[in-house]
Amino acid sequence: MSHPIRVTVWGENRHEQLEPEVAERYPDGMHGAVAQGIEANLGQRVRVRTATLDEPEHGLTEEVLRETDVLTWWGHAAHGEVSDEVAERVQRHVLEGMGLIVLHSGHWSKVFTRLMGTTCTLRWRAEHDRELVWTVDPTHPIAQGIPHPMIIDEDEMYGEFFDVPAPDEIVFISSFSGGEVFRSGITYRRGFGKIFYFRPGDQEYPTYFHDGVRRVISNAVEWAVTLRPERTTPTLLRYETEDFYQGHGYEGPLKSEDEEAQSEEVR
Amino acid sequence: MSHPIRVTVWGENRHEQLEPEVAERYPDGMHGAVAQGIEANLGQRVRVRTATLDEPEHGLTEEVLRETDVLTWWGHAAHGEVSDEVAERVQRHVLEGMGLIVLHSGHWSKVFTRLMGTTCTLRWRAEHDRELVWTVDPTHPIAQGIPHPMIIDEDEMYGEFFDVPAPDEIVFISSFSGGEVFRSGITYRRGFGKIFYFRPGDQEYPTYFHDGVRRVISNAVEWAVTLRPERTTPTLLRYETEDFYQGHGYEGPLKSEDEEAQSEEVR
Amino acid sequence: MSHPIRVTVWGENRHEQLEPEVAERYPDGMHGAVAQGIEANLGQRVRVRTATLDEPEHGLTEEVLRETDVLTWWGHAAHGEVSDEVAERVQRHVLEGMGLIVLHSGHWSKVFTRLMGTTCTLRWRAEHDRELVWTVDPTHPIAQGIPHPMIIDEDEMYGEFFDVPAPDEIVFISSFSGGEVFRSGITYRRGFGKIFYFRPGDQEYPTYFHDGVRRVISNAVEWAVTLRPERTTPTLLRYETEDFYQGHGYEGPLKSEDEEAQSEEVR
Amino acid sequence: MSHPIRVTVWGENRHEQLEPEVAERYPDGMHGAVAQGIEANLGQRVRVRTATLDEPEHGLTEEVLRETDVLTWWGHAAHGEVSDEVAERVQRHVLEGMGLIVLHSGHWSKVFTRLMGTTCTLRWRAEHDRELVWTVDPTHPIAQGIPHPMIIDEDEMYGEFFDVPAPDEIVFISSFSGGEVFRSGITYRRGFGKIFYFRPGDQEYPTYFHDGVRRVISNAVEWAVTLRPERTTPTLLRYETEDFYQGHGYEGPLKSEDEEAQSEEVR
Repeated sequence: MSHPIRVTVWGENRHEQLEPEVAERYPDGMHGAVAQGIEANLGQRVRVRTATLDEPEHGLTEEVLRETDVLTWWGHAAHGEVSDEVAERVQRHVLEGMGLIVLHSGHWSKVFTRLMGTTCTLRWRAEHDRELVWTVDPTHPIAQGIPHPMIIDEDEMYGEFFDVPAPDEIVFISSFSGGEVFRSGITYRRGFGKIFYFRPGDQEYPTYFHDGVRRVISNAVEWAVTLRPERTTPTLLRYETEDFYQGHGYEGPLKSEDEEAQSEEVR
Repeated sequence: MSHPIRVTVWGENRHEQLEPEVAERYPDGMHGAVAQGIEANLGQRVRVRTATLDEPEHGLTEEVLRETDVLTWWGHAAHGEVSDEVAERVQRHVLEGMGLIVLHSGHWSKVFTRLMGTTCTLRWRAEHDRELVWTVDPTHPIAQGIPHPMIIDEDEMYGEFFDVPAPDEIVFISSFSGGEVFRSGITYRRGFGKIFYFRPGDQEYPTYFHDGVRRVISNAVEWAVTLRPERTTPTLLRYETEDFYQGHGYEGPLKSEDEEAQSEEVR
Repeated sequence: MSHPIRVTVWGENRHEQLEPEVAERYPDGMHGAVAQGIEANLGQRVRVRTATLDEPEHGLTEEVLRETDVLTWWGHAAHGEVSDEVAERVQRHVLEGMGLIVLHSGHWSKVFTRLMGTTCTLRWRAEHDRELVWTVDPTHPIAQGIPHPMIIDEDEMYGEFFDVPAPDEIVFISSFSGGEVFRSGITYRRGFGKIFYFRPGDQEYPTYFHDGVRRVISNAVEWAVTLRPERTTPTLLRYETEDFYQGHGYEGPLKSEDEEAQSEEVR
Repeated sequence: MSHPIRVTVWGENRHEQLEPEVAERYPDGMHGAVAQGIEANLGQRVRVRTATLDEPEHGLTEEVLRETDVLTWWGHAAHGEVSDEVAERVQRHVLEGMGLIVLHSGHWSKVFTRLMGTTCTLRWRAEHDRELVWTVDPTHPIAQGIPHPMIIDEDEMYGEFFDVPAPDEIVFISSFSGGEVFRSGITYRRGFGKIFYFRPGDQEYPTYFHDGVRRVISNAVEWAVTLRPERTTPTLLRYETEDFYQGHGYEGPLKSEDEEAQSEEVR
């Protein structure tokens, strides 16, 4: 890209307001910690802003999304408060080419479940498990510079079965002290957009200050930028024989409508 | 399965009512032709019923779906008239283990787009293209007994880019006289359910009387039966360390709620 | 299949001869234990024989392989003693439609590495790790009836990075007491054959007497049977325009040879 | 990469010597045309050299390969003359991280079939088919800037079934005038190396002067560069519990050998 990658870090920002120990752990919010990690790794190559649930339209207006190359999403306590309209808008922008990085408990967000089509449920435990993050796709851009394994001393446990579609690529698999495993770094292409789900990170632990976790998120930001020149919606079009490049708009499913529409087009 | 596969063939049944030439081509409706093809191929191994848009709840009540092992779906002119409630119900049953076979213009149905998360658009042309259906996964159950290529003398053209997630498996790829190509037989696993999308078939052509097309749909019916013993929703549960099999219900995301809930559980 | 599945269980059978404690653990050899497990689960649905390294042609003559629907492979100490000719013969039969189940240290066999094209290396440790085998593809035939997780009290550890091609399907992921993870049940289709690699099992532990391990291998035997009616090699053929079904044999790459060959065909 | 991508374009260079019309079509050899296309697209970003079959060690010494980031391969009439030693050397370098682009009839080369593990056969016809190359993965780096479809006025036909492993990614699917289809742009990761197979191109047609074809090959060169810092072989190592980063070399499969080896290590 000729210009810096425009990143919007979205945070629900509720635990930080309701739970003093979370506020102490993340004085700038979890979104603040995520944003700082990206800036620390990518410097001039990004321009980062944040947005939160309580802003009008959750800070994700049409204008903001149109100027966002990659959106990161962290939510947990208030998935249900995200408006359907905004969730649908985010989904549409992903399909048109906006990158999306879904973090940890964002697995259950409206945005992610709409894009996956499944329940996105899992097993979990909030104790003091050590998480080991193993790379199973060592040439993947998102895995570059990440130790094998990457050790996170304490984190929430997420375990299989993770009810998501079979990923396009599995980059990381985690284990936990208790013996559970999880496909913890997975990619999907949807429409013209690229999606990365990354498991680590919880309000109860300082995960978003972990160097390796920050590096993974930063790698993912660079990976998730779509290469297409402009943001467009995949559109259903009719193409005449031997006319490969000039599609016609859809004119309705019933034959009579087709004929009327076509005769109008001719006029 | 010890009992016959219980198949529900869903048809929109609008073209048949509105367009006399479609009614003539498909005197029992397109759903009738699909149902007969399945019965002709699978005989005693299936018990087939049909349901259509104009029935109460589109013929897809909770009871009907609970007793359906595999649902086939054809819609075109009236996708928008399918109620959100029924579309969500069908999606839920698929995630719980009901098989789903989406036929032709069903690509744009609420049911399929909800499960895919994408626009499911494509390019198309209703002329008299010959379609050749080539098998690219020759050991797949759905491909057994199908000629390579399978020739359909006249059919509507669907061409790439087909905006769907990368399939778990590509069984068939079609070409058309005009030179377009299409991933025309593709599988997805979603939740505990199995999905097959199959391209051929249109109200303008007698495609659902084609022996090979009927055989593919019948193979897919047998393939789509989930192997799990009972229909269950994937559910998010908490598991204590070393307790691998007894998950606890989710008690809310905020710590205070957790603690209250847990102390209640203890009592 | 109308006839019972014809299974050949291949065992290297060296540890059993050289190490008394292995002979005591597996009095009928490891191949004997594997064969008994398959028979115990599938009964009349299989006909099982065994073959070992020290037999002429390692017990895998052309005749034996032609009459084998599914071959299971365990080797460890003597991969290098398997003749290239037999390894190539097994590879060819897999490509023609014989199922192959590769067990544990068979990952480094000539047969498996030839079919994968990679080094098939991994990390390992022979201590007393507990292995937990988690299902990540719950509707897969091979996972039916297997506990989630399946617990193996003591086993050798294999860890990532496992240098194999990205699997077509990942059915199981294992963790070990030490925290390592491994893609422990994975499928591949190669030519007209189906391959399942399954990690558990070692000469140092009684793994092949474990009920769940035996059930997985038995499920895999049923899954690995190719559906194609006869065993054939994929062959490169020339097809004239509009002649979709009658390919001609390859006549050499150079034009003059083609022309000569064609003129001979005409005569 | 900080330095230009070091590309070696390998050509069999036999048709050019034996068939005057091929020599006229490709005065600098097909390898010359491929090399010029890469240079024309990537300029200072690459340093391209060529190598051919008749050079000592086919021009692919250990030294040449060690200094090659991406190798392109075209062969046809003389696959059998490539020495097993060189084929194995190329395979090893791919597994260690060298990119590989296999062109057209290279599908049947020793290098490609060793890496795939299958026969890599297909159906073909050398007539004057028009090839349409359709993009089915529009955000893939290799598809950037390529028309949809890309039209090649005349080319050899290759058709399914193409006996290769299910690709990691399908970027392009081709159709031909005769109605055949082919997965014509496909990717594989093997070891630490990335592989792209691209179908178009034949000695009988000026395909390697086609702007789009040259652009695809150039995109693939940039894509195929492995991101890993140095070229290393995946190696089987033993790791003690809690020692995640210091593996020990393999000391032989039999227990007695292990113990001896370990006691030696201790000394």
